[in-house]
Amino acid sequence: MKQSRTLIPTLREMPADAEIKSHQFLLRAGFIRQVASGVYTYMPLAKRVLDKIENIIREEMENAGAAELLMPALQPAELWQESGRWHTYGDELMRLRDRHGRGFALGATHEEVITSLVNDDVQSYKKMPLTLYQIQTKFRDEQRPRFGLLRGREFIMKDAYSFHTSEESLDEVYQKIYKAYTNIFTRCELDFRAVLADSGAIGGKDTQEFMVLSDIGEDTIVYSDTSDYAANLEMAEAPQNYDKPTDIEKELVKVETPAQKSIEEVSRFLNSHPGHCIKSLVFKADDEYVMILVRGDHEVNDIKVKNGLNAKIVELAEHVEIEHLLECPIGSLGPINLNEKMKVYADHAVKALANAICGANEDGYHYMNVQPCRDFTVDKYMDFRFIKEGDPSPDGKGKVQFARGIEVGHIFKLGKTYSEAMGASYLDVNGRSQSYIMGCYGIGVSRTLSAVAEQFNDENGLVWPVNIAPYHIHVIPVNTKDEAQSYLAEELYELFKSNRYEVLLDDRSERPGVKFKDSDLIGLPVRITVGKKANDGIVEVKVRKTGEMFEVTKDEILPMLAKILQEA
Amino acid sequence: MKQSRTLIPTLREMPADAEIKSHQFLLRAGFIRQVASGVYTYMPLAKRVLDKIENIIREEMENAGAAELLMPALQPAELWQESGRWHTYGDELMRLRDRHGRGFALGATHEEVITSLVNDDVQSYKKMPLTLYQIQTKFRDEQRPRFGLLRGREFIMKDAYSFHTSEESLDEVYQKIYKAYTNIFTRCELDFRAVLADSGAIGGKDTQEFMVLSDIGEDTIVYSDTSDYAANLEMAEAPQNYDKPTDIEKELVKVETPAQKSIEEVSRFLNSHPGHCIKSLVFKADDEYVMILVRGDHEVNDIKVKNGLNAKIVELAEHVEIEHLLECPIGSLGPINLNEKMKVYADHAVKALANAICGANEDGYHYMNVQPCRDFTVDKYMDFRFIKEGDPSPDGKGKVQFARGIEVGHIFKLGKTYSEAMGASYLDVNGRSQSYIMGCYGIGVSRTLSAVAEQFNDENGLVWPVNIAPYHIHVIPVNTKDEAQSYLAEELYELFKSNRYEVLLDDRSERPGVKFKDSDLIGLPVRITVGKKANDGIVEVKVRKTGEMFEVTKDEILPMLAKILQEA
Repeated sequence: MKQSRTLIPTLREMPADAEIKSHQFLLRAGFIRQVASGVYTYMPLAKRVLDKIENIIREEMENAGAAELLMPALQPAELWQESGRWHTYGDELMRLRDRHGRGFALGATHEEVITSLVNDDVQSYKKMPLTLYQIQTKFRDEQRPRFGLLRGREFIMKDAYSFHTSEESLDEVYQKIYKAYTNIFTRCELDFRAVLADSGAIGGKDTQEFMVLSDIGEDTIVYSDTSDYAANLEMAEAPQNYDKPTDIEKELVKVETPAQKSIEEVSRFLNSHPGHCIKSLVFKADDEYVMILVRGDHEVNDIKVKNGLNAKIVELAEHVEIEHLLECPIGSLGPINLNEKMKVYADHAVKALANAICGANEDGYHYMNVQPCRDFTVDKYMDFRFIKEGDPSPDGKGKVQFARGIEVGHIFKLGKTYSEAMGASYLDVNGRSQSYIMGCYGIGVSRTLSAVAEQFNDENGLVWPVNIAPYHIHVIPVNTKDEAQSYLAEELYELFKSNRYEVLLDDRSERPGVKFKDSDLIGLPVRITVGKKANDGIVEVKVRKTGEMFEVTKDEILPMLAKILQEA
Repeated sequence: MKQSRTLIPTLREMPADAEIKSHQFLLRAGFIRQVASGVYTYMPLAKRVLDKIENIIREEMENAGAAELLMPALQPAELWQESGRWHTYGDELMRLRDRHGRGFALGATHEEVITSLVNDDVQSYKKMPLTLYQIQTKFRDEQRPRFGLLRGREFIMKDAYSFHTSEESLDEVYQKIYKAYTNIFTRCELDFRAVLADSGAIGGKDTQEFMVLSDIGEDTIVYSDTSDYAANLEMAEAPQNYDKPTDIEKELVKVETPAQKSIEEVSRFLNSHPGHCIKSLVFKADDEYVMILVRGDHEVNDIKVKNGLNAKIVELAEHVEIEHLLECPIGSLGPINLNEKMKVYADHAVKALANAICGANEDGYHYMNVQPCRDFTVDKYMDFRFIKEGDPSPDGKGKVQFARGIEVGHIFKLGKTYSEAMGASYLDVNGRSQSYIMGCYGIGVSRTLSAVAEQFNDENGLVWPVNIAPYHIHVIPVNTKDEAQSYLAEELYELFKSNRYEVLLDDRSERPGVKFKDSDLIGLPVRITVGKKANDGIVEVKVRKTGEMFEVTKDEILPMLAKILQEA
């Protein structure tokens, strides 16, 4: 493509309101333009990147045995009413009425449409497993669109749905899609992890998120420094087994701790450290008050408390409630002699403590030399805490580290959630009606583009990985009015194209400085500068990623390009 | 693709409400499913056809120097208010409000978005001409969606927009796009014509529609039997020059024609024929009554009257108005002695009449032997009539014929309509602000799919042209439980794929009759049946288009396929 023919409106100034690098550079390099809050035009360069990401997705999805279709954005309200989501989805679902007053949703996702379609057209168990996918524009009216394409209101998604007659078949396809996603994000050269996630309100079973590691990510990921274990912070299992110290058990002592409230204060006051203390918190789990114990240097994970106690709602008890119940302020709570008043649950780490410190349920007093098994009763030891950096990895391999992540993919075993709600069924081998077992699998396509831009840039602009670069090569004649330069640039442009490279030729009559700055901003893998040595057939090659530059003759250039683009 | 892995839900029954063949077969062959009135899911086979059409479009648009981008469906109401179309577009424009109450249109077309974008990012004359296009989903809330994809409410369109600093530049790009469109529809193997169209209310100058010839088309096309001239019936110029008969001019005679009203009645009564009569009609053109004369065997074209008289509104006068004005019923109207009462305009054909018949402006009387130049005055002779089949072609080459057409493309010189309305401008070579001169160019992508299905079918189903067939080859093992058949079918499937053919393998355990019927319905160019002679490596090849069948050995098959698929 000749640059004069396409539209790459680069900006010198940093755009206002663009907080993160990908957003800044995608605007500055002319890849995107905002049409409304969270609504963008993909300019010609971005469209090419999207096409490449989409083609990678298509290849891997086809390899995983999925067939592509294309469903509409306009979805009748009735379908969403059947699934119940017309009411539960809230303001994020964009809605409208047609000229006859019929209600429609703009597709935020397509479980309803595909379930209805399959219910109409797949009556027999023989037609399953069946995996269908589409790459399509989605609409979600985010409360606060931000970060450019990372959280938009109109965006491109690959969504896939699988239909099964058994959990085993779902497991098998789920694994295939897992593998496909791993290939997709690997081919996009992203640094990512597949993390265990919470299945949340939607029901269903296993679910994993594909997270691109990035400081601007909104989620914390826990991952092993040795294996490929990774999970959302909320989900990661803390250790169950701790080395029991060999200290001699001392006698329980009640000590005065005037005005010492926090774990830090108490442990310092008693010349100990937080890891020797027991942190005691009172929760209201549904209608019952319970005490949860964790080690002083650990934090309680509410989700684990909720799941562990099998409660619907779990929240910290209010101060006044606690003082009313235990006649003691929260700074001196403890499990000793508490069992008449409420159940006590403790994290596994508490069990391994010896000669520990805990509150005495009396204002200004704590116990020392507490032995959990000797001095109080625990109804059940469970995993109640957030894992910490340095903890052993839950899979037993290495230690965990933390990172921030951008979610680019999500795979989910839906089970029968939708098929049962919508009465969608097939006939099994015995002729009996059965609800489909379903899986769903999403990739944020436009978000993936942004995530790549976020991971691949330097101070001068974007640095596209070869596989998804808008073009491979940027050919720049320094002076387009110089005949030798123009001629050689055109010659190379045609040569590269005929060798199946994608080439952008900067044929604009701009100053060299402008061209080079634009070229760095755009970030194609290789730049070929045709300058004063054009008469001798010599050009300069620059590798965007490494900054390496060297001069080559026309004849050496093809093998060199092959080498650079393979390595880049 | 193995048929068991994809979803091709064929139907034995003729679907209700599907009036035309393309709609019937696309439903029956499992290409499309309706989600709501005028809203469809493109099933896997249709998706593949769309991809192929889109790729052809992309290649030809790129060759024409256009760059692809992708604009959003959500368009802020403000943009449509700027152009004025928020009010004029009417119910066809789908509208909604976001969670903050801001108004949006769902893109029915993108003149507003692209004009705003270019206005922001193209400030200099140096950046033009610039042609941008997208392939995107459009929304139009049709009053009466029908004919499947032919008139839907959510559909796929290629829309292109060009920006220029001069009319000459617009002309040049218009011609390039004309050529691109011709290539696109030719590669889709459509029987089409580029026809001159009315630029209508939108303003602008030249405009042409690309019409696929089809009896179910909603428009009448006039085309030359010799040249490539074609126009909408409303637009086609009728001849200006007619041979003047050499008859001796007879004397004017007024004759009684009791109860003879129509041209047919009068001409029969007077032993003449309609081609010798003058048809006199009274129109109200804005606020003035005028008489329009055409030959008795011709029909008045209102649009030509409107354009010829340069009137805003033209309509036939009511009977009561005429009787009040001329004291005569409409069956006996005529131009003689009328000039005091209203102006008389006549079609060119009237001038060439001799010894003609016309009404006498007296109930029950007509004149015979009327000589137009002798007996009455005409204010102006113009082209006022519809062209007829058999008339000479307006380009002077051959005679015209009529056909019905489906509009699949439209190219349009917009001029400054949008740029002036929206205040969109650039700086010219002298630094002066100028409005962009624009062109716009559309192709109905999903409609093109339908048009192909409408032109390429027989009583057994669809017959896809090779270039856009969902797959090239349908491999059918007659009995999947027969090991030799299954094995050979798989072997051929892999062989064809490795030779870059796209192959559908019917690996279902259905009866042979079902498979063959489905295969004919789907309509891939070549069918390979693997039956009882599988053991001898012999299969049957059937060409879908011609019905030819022959047996070949495994070794002969590749060269034969190459030959068939090239010829098909």
